[in-house]
Amino acid sequence: MMEMDNRIEAIHAGLQAIVGVDQVFAGSATERWSRDWTGQFEGQPLAVVRPANRDEVAAILRLAGQYHVPVVPIAGNTGLNGGAYGPEAILVSIERMNRIREIRNDARVAIVEAGVIVAALDSAAAQHGLTFPLAFGAAGSAMIGGVLSTNAGGANVLRYGNVRDLCLGLEVVLPDGSVLDLMTALKKDNSGFDLRDLIIGAEGQLGIITAAILKLHPRPLFHATALVALEDLSVAPALLNAFQDASGNAVTAYEFMSRSYVAGYEALVPAGRRFFDVSYPAVLLVELATVRNEELGEILETVLADALERGILVDAVVAQSDTQRQEMWALREAAAELAFQRHPVIDTDVAVPLDRIPDYLDRIPEIMAAIDPGFTDIAVAHFGDGNIHYTVWPSGSDPAVEAALRAAIDALAVEMDGTFSAEHGIGLCKLPSMARHKNTVALDMMRAIKAAFDPGNILNPGKTLPGVNVG
Amino acid sequence: MMEMDNRIEAIHAGLQAIVGVDQVFAGSATERWSRDWTGQFEGQPLAVVRPANRDEVAAILRLAGQYHVPVVPIAGNTGLNGGAYGPEAILVSIERMNRIREIRNDARVAIVEAGVIVAALDSAAAQHGLTFPLAFGAAGSAMIGGVLSTNAGGANVLRYGNVRDLCLGLEVVLPDGSVLDLMTALKKDNSGFDLRDLIIGAEGQLGIITAAILKLHPRPLFHATALVALEDLSVAPALLNAFQDASGNAVTAYEFMSRSYVAGYEALVPAGRRFFDVSYPAVLLVELATVRNEELGEILETVLADALERGILVDAVVAQSDTQRQEMWALREAAAELAFQRHPVIDTDVAVPLDRIPDYLDRIPEIMAAIDPGFTDIAVAHFGDGNIHYTVWPSGSDPAVEAALRAAIDALAVEMDGTFSAEHGIGLCKLPSMARHKNTVALDMMRAIKAAFDPGNILNPGKTLPGVNVG
Repeated sequence: MMEMDNRIEAIHAGLQAIVGVDQVFAGSATERWSRDWTGQFEGQPLAVVRPANRDEVAAILRLAGQYHVPVVPIAGNTGLNGGAYGPEAILVSIERMNRIREIRNDARVAIVEAGVIVAALDSAAAQHGLTFPLAFGAAGSAMIGGVLSTNAGGANVLRYGNVRDLCLGLEVVLPDGSVLDLMTALKKDNSGFDLRDLIIGAEGQLGIITAAILKLHPRPLFHATALVALEDLSVAPALLNAFQDASGNAVTAYEFMSRSYVAGYEALVPAGRRFFDVSYPAVLLVELATVRNEELGEILETVLADALERGILVDAVVAQSDTQRQEMWALREAAAELAFQRHPVIDTDVAVPLDRIPDYLDRIPEIMAAIDPGFTDIAVAHFGDGNIHYTVWPSGSDPAVEAALRAAIDALAVEMDGTFSAEHGIGLCKLPSMARHKNTVALDMMRAIKAAFDPGNILNPGKTLPGVNVG
Repeated sequence: MMEMDNRIEAIHAGLQAIVGVDQVFAGSATERWSRDWTGQFEGQPLAVVRPANRDEVAAILRLAGQYHVPVVPIAGNTGLNGGAYGPEAILVSIERMNRIREIRNDARVAIVEAGVIVAALDSAAAQHGLTFPLAFGAAGSAMIGGVLSTNAGGANVLRYGNVRDLCLGLEVVLPDGSVLDLMTALKKDNSGFDLRDLIIGAEGQLGIITAAILKLHPRPLFHATALVALEDLSVAPALLNAFQDASGNAVTAYEFMSRSYVAGYEALVPAGRRFFDVSYPAVLLVELATVRNEELGEILETVLADALERGILVDAVVAQSDTQRQEMWALREAAAELAFQRHPVIDTDVAVPLDRIPDYLDRIPEIMAAIDPGFTDIAVAHFGDGNIHYTVWPSGSDPAVEAALRAAIDALAVEMDGTFSAEHGIGLCKLPSMARHKNTVALDMMRAIKAAFDPGNILNPGKTLPGVNVG
């Protein structure tokens, strides 16, 4: 015991020597990082440390290697699957590395440190008429290092791709403290294996991202936004094509919300705007955006009127002001808050080919009911990406029932040529599905890569890859 | 010697047992594969074998592992850097695996075998109003497996990205004969490390691609094409922005040709169309394309007239027919033929930030002259991607001079925040630059990945990664 205390003291002293006494936190002072907002993960880290720069990150990793202590990088702490859960680990918070080093207007790139908050980068880009178009509810807290490590998606993937598609260059500190410098702003670079894309989405298993070069896009000047009500979701793919064709692919968001989701929002936010008098089976938020004024509003209204006349949709509300647009987005963006208001909760992010979403949503409630007849649910989807967030509250709190519900949600997606993990990553929550559904050759290769980068298994151990034991 | 002959006989017999007697070639019958069209690489393989499917590829790799014989995959044999050079290796030609399994019109994806020729896929897509938009001179011979393994680029990257951006799913046979099944058509899939992008561009070091799921795009119905003459290339970035802004980002190609290139074309193709009476310092081929008719021709002419009036450009010819469009492209697409008509030749594919292209092209001739005063050159560039193909013919045939010229071309690109390898890959030609310029941490990680995938170093040994010895 004494020996253990001495070891912990030595680690704390070592960390203080690297980052300064003020930037090492222990005991109750770690609460801000050691508990996640979903309420699912809480555990006392050995220490939280806030390095100021890449070299301090490298020194921390070398120290951790010396003492064989696990290191868990943490950014905005907005993940949903426990990826930043680090009991008895050194939690490395990158929040102080939050400088936007440069925005190159002509080249449309930003050079940023990993602790920059997503919304802050977009605000800075806006001053140049540009946008960093990653859009999801947690954009005001999530940081670049975190969204890169999880290859985050969100509501604008349809137009701009995942974070992977927005990244040109990376700076990464590897587990042994060496620096992998991939900081290029080039659109074409075929000099060897694609290490950049290997690091993106690796959930901090292979290295800690400390800086990045990101693409910016021209900031849309004109938006046209509407909520559309459908009796039958099966018409949604054709309606999306109608919007795309009429607008020349100007659709930036095409977001589905289930009847139960809209009802849940109205209960959660009693003062929130009500858009329809009737409760419809399916509501879609559609948004078109462009840098040129091509009468987007007219295009939107024409497609809507035509679809209404043909009985494809049953109701629609077009935003008449920016306030109304914000109100529509407020409805959609409450999804995570709504999901995690009650526990236990099973929050998922499966994907299927987009034309199979209606079929998936038809079939899944029966499957849930067979396991737990008293379950309740809501569903939203980034429809244009085939990505469904299906959320279930079990009627009781039996872990075996929870596991069975989660397994069934994932299994149906896989059965329908989809994936059990579209955008939130694996973390801890999805290790069983990863073991069950990911092909074993791929898992073997991932484990081999992990071992090559991190032979001591120091970085974020016990997550992402089933069968890699905590070091 | 007898023992060696026995070993070779046993390998041939083993290969014949896998693919059939007709599909194994030796001696002079291998010439079609063992000599590349650039005239730079020629070497007698142990055998050429043409498997019919994935399982035969796997069996070949297992056989090769047993006998410790190197395996070199070969597709269209259109590479420029010796990536498919396989003396004393088993050359695995994928040409018989050439079935387009399915084109899904609504989902805009194609499921293809790796031996499908790029132009054949585009023709098949055209029947659905779609396009596979990879555009380069060798599209009529290059195969999907080859362009994926080299992450090929070409003239339309500006609009559609590299091949990496066109690929959703992959099937890969690993060196031990196991099959890595990543055949998903999903736009979002965050289930573990990004093995797909690791395989793309790996030059056959990690596995042999046998099938892929590729994105298709709506086929542009309207093109507007022009050749533009400039006195000073430094205005080219601003002119590109003018085209993009006026057309709503409809530019699909923005291709630079040097004065010496145009002269070289006129000498090579005496019957080819002449567009200008005067020899200008810089010519650009610009093309706009759209699925909707937005008066693209008018937009093009308006921008050109405005730029002419402001003295930005000195001359322009707008294609008045599809024939004229084809003639303009014939001028641009002769680049490889022009480069390899004389030997020795140094053909390169550096990239720099696009606004530095003019500076690069200003500086490089002096650097060449300092090494070899009698050198001659041509230059073309995928200007919008920052990607320059600078071709030099040395005055003599001293390998040391050749190496010095190549090294200087690559070094200047790296000095200007660029890369020595934008799109052709490393192969054999660029191993010295890879050793000189790639950061050592990245190289170490690549070697570790190579060792994890291919511990026997059987696949395409001695290429791509300096310091990995032939097995």
